[in-house]
Amino acid sequence: MPSVEIVAVGTEILLGQLLDTNTSFIAARLAEAGIDVHATHAIGDNRERIAATIRAALERAEGVVTTGGLGPTVDDLTKEAVCDALGLGVELYEPALAHMKALFASFDRPMRENNRKQAELPLGSRPLDNPNGTAPGFIAFGAGGKFVACMPGVPREMKPMLEGQVVPFLRERFGARERIYTRVLHTIGIGESEIDHRIEELFRRGENPKIAVLAHDYRADVKIMAKAGSATEADGMIAPLQGEIECRLLGHVFGRDEATPASAVVALLRGRGQTLAVAESCTGGLVCAALTAVPGASQNFVGGVVAYDNAVKISQLGVDAARIAMAGAVSEEVARAMARGARERLKAGVALSTTGIAGPEGGTPEKPVGLVWIALDDGESHAVRLQLRGDRDAITRRATTAALGMLWRHLNNSRR
Amino acid sequence: MPSVEIVAVGTEILLGQLLDTNTSFIAARLAEAGIDVHATHAIGDNRERIAATIRAALERAEGVVTTGGLGPTVDDLTKEAVCDALGLGVELYEPALAHMKALFASFDRPMRENNRKQAELPLGSRPLDNPNGTAPGFIAFGAGGKFVACMPGVPREMKPMLEGQVVPFLRERFGARERIYTRVLHTIGIGESEIDHRIEELFRRGENPKIAVLAHDYRADVKIMAKAGSATEADGMIAPLQGEIECRLLGHVFGRDEATPASAVVALLRGRGQTLAVAESCTGGLVCAALTAVPGASQNFVGGVVAYDNAVKISQLGVDAARIAMAGAVSEEVARAMARGARERLKAGVALSTTGIAGPEGGTPEKPVGLVWIALDDGESHAVRLQLRGDRDAITRRATTAALGMLWRHLNNSRR
Repeated sequence: MPSVEIVAVGTEILLGQLLDTNTSFIAARLAEAGIDVHATHAIGDNRERIAATIRAALERAEGVVTTGGLGPTVDDLTKEAVCDALGLGVELYEPALAHMKALFASFDRPMRENNRKQAELPLGSRPLDNPNGTAPGFIAFGAGGKFVACMPGVPREMKPMLEGQVVPFLRERFGARERIYTRVLHTIGIGESEIDHRIEELFRRGENPKIAVLAHDYRADVKIMAKAGSATEADGMIAPLQGEIECRLLGHVFGRDEATPASAVVALLRGRGQTLAVAESCTGGLVCAALTAVPGASQNFVGGVVAYDNAVKISQLGVDAARIAMAGAVSEEVARAMARGARERLKAGVALSTTGIAGPEGGTPEKPVGLVWIALDDGESHAVRLQLRGDRDAITRRATTAALGMLWRHLNNSRR
Repeated sequence: MPSVEIVAVGTEILLGQLLDTNTSFIAARLAEAGIDVHATHAIGDNRERIAATIRAALERAEGVVTTGGLGPTVDDLTKEAVCDALGLGVELYEPALAHMKALFASFDRPMRENNRKQAELPLGSRPLDNPNGTAPGFIAFGAGGKFVACMPGVPREMKPMLEGQVVPFLRERFGARERIYTRVLHTIGIGESEIDHRIEELFRRGENPKIAVLAHDYRADVKIMAKAGSATEADGMIAPLQGEIECRLLGHVFGRDEATPASAVVALLRGRGQTLAVAESCTGGLVCAALTAVPGASQNFVGGVVAYDNAVKISQLGVDAARIAMAGAVSEEVARAMARGARERLKAGVALSTTGIAGPEGGTPEKPVGLVWIALDDGESHAVRLQLRGDRDAITRRATTAALGMLWRHLNNSRR
């Protein structure tokens, strides 16, 4: 089975100043395309070391895919290093020069000699168009049919070049007839170990499709991966397993693939023509922000009140001052009153509220950091108490997921 | 100058299922410690390939630092591969076995034979304690004084082992007397190219300290890096340059190192004992969430209204319905009215508002996607119009930074 290696170029990566997300992106796309990757490397802006890394990789693999180092500066040395590694000269690629000239004219900026250099490609190489930038990519060829595919490091330029040109080239080259199709089932309100327990023997049914459970903050995903020759074939392999898993995790699978807790909530609200309002204390706007991130949410999400100060809980949500004085701002009573207030004041069908102690200060033995009350009001009132772990950031993120999860389960159960 | 290479072990990394953040973390700590890293690699759970990668790295470098593959499963093969690469056997390390037995007893779980395997280390190696997990790390030694330092892949276990044991070992080993000290100056309201222009010749003053400009969403950082033998020495090198840069970027540097736009705003509010309220439409809770993320923000940030629906703008912020009908929800008038309403209704000293079109739907030729109005009200009213680029997520993030930046500059200017 042929394989490739990935090389990311950039001194900032080696200094830990830039987290290289390109390599992971490329690796994922190649895995889906059924192309094996046996190693990845990051190397600095050093011509000899880049060339040596490529040379060594080509001894092990059929090809190398690189990202970065194609810019116009003196630090951009990937092309020169590829020429060194493969023993090639360069030639001017006219269409790239024309593209660059047009781009600079549209910016009304002069083109410099170092930009012209970007239009030169290793002799005999196959150009890769770059509609989102100046520098073209290329696939250069060496002895024994080995190749090096070079792409820019800017993700916005690299990603379409990879998906539109490099992956198709690799699939044809390797005669890859199968690729990996993935379906993700997102769950909430059920722990990773309980999921494991319920679907354990499905894991052992075979290697294709494969199942993995991935834990996130306060929720978990089940990933089903099928190696197949077409989407239809993959769907035929995934569907029965998916049905079985959804059945065993009934009431917990809130969505597939791109779904988020917020998008699942918005979809249910939309289905029943219901509106939602939010009252947040400890989550401080994160529940509203998660809902707003769903395109088209404005049809059903009317808005919210971030009632951080008690005075705002009283004035904007109508929470009784005496109740806050008696039970404290972080209490079941106040959570319920906040939800009711949000529903009535913002004139929504259902409202969700959060109040808790995110820390690092403010905890007591009775009400420790991580204590969060969540309430839901749709005429009837519901509340849950959580004790969350982690720092301020983790607690607020988990409380946000838990609140949206509580609402999703409520809407989902009352639908059946 | 001696150097090391970093090897991350795990098939999930090569499949793009796990974004490897360990390598970047290790690289940053080593750079700070003055230790050169010339290459990093990721490799799957394959004994031969791990051994070959380590062997090749040791031909180029004095040492290798690995992360991952020390767990108890059959897929965890780093230790075996290191033994292969260096030609070493293993020996039982009693303290690690005792630590593991105590851990399992405290969990009330039986210890299995594969856990016992974790207490075995390559012959003659130096153990690295792991207070946060079962498996110890180790530094194994080969011919010619070359070494391989192996750490677990779980970040919570790896990080303290790196900082407490591996970095001190490397610094001693390499006789590193200097390390890199960094100061970051965060700016807002000034473009990357304008910063470049104003401090250009400071870049050329020398290699130590070094300056870099890093662009973020709607703001930029200036990073000053000094190679020095102590923090005091570094400070003496950084301070004059920092003073010069802060002077040239006067009115734009909102904070240093860990500061965020929100923390800078909270610090100014605290200094003058002023309170803040927020009214958000297009940013949908992100401004509130950014403020809430600052520990202790509740002293000065009273809360906000996420007025996504026009009815909420009218009922909760007192925006005139006729004004919305006339000018539209995304308009200077409505932005100003939202800020005034938030200040009055939430009884704050100053209020900030946002209204805009985040897309992907809802744009028109007159009001395209990316149009955002921000207003500020402290008795007087101020408003700015922005035309932001990017997708829904980028537009809302940029609008959030721009809004906090506008408020910071207003508070900062009125202070002087």
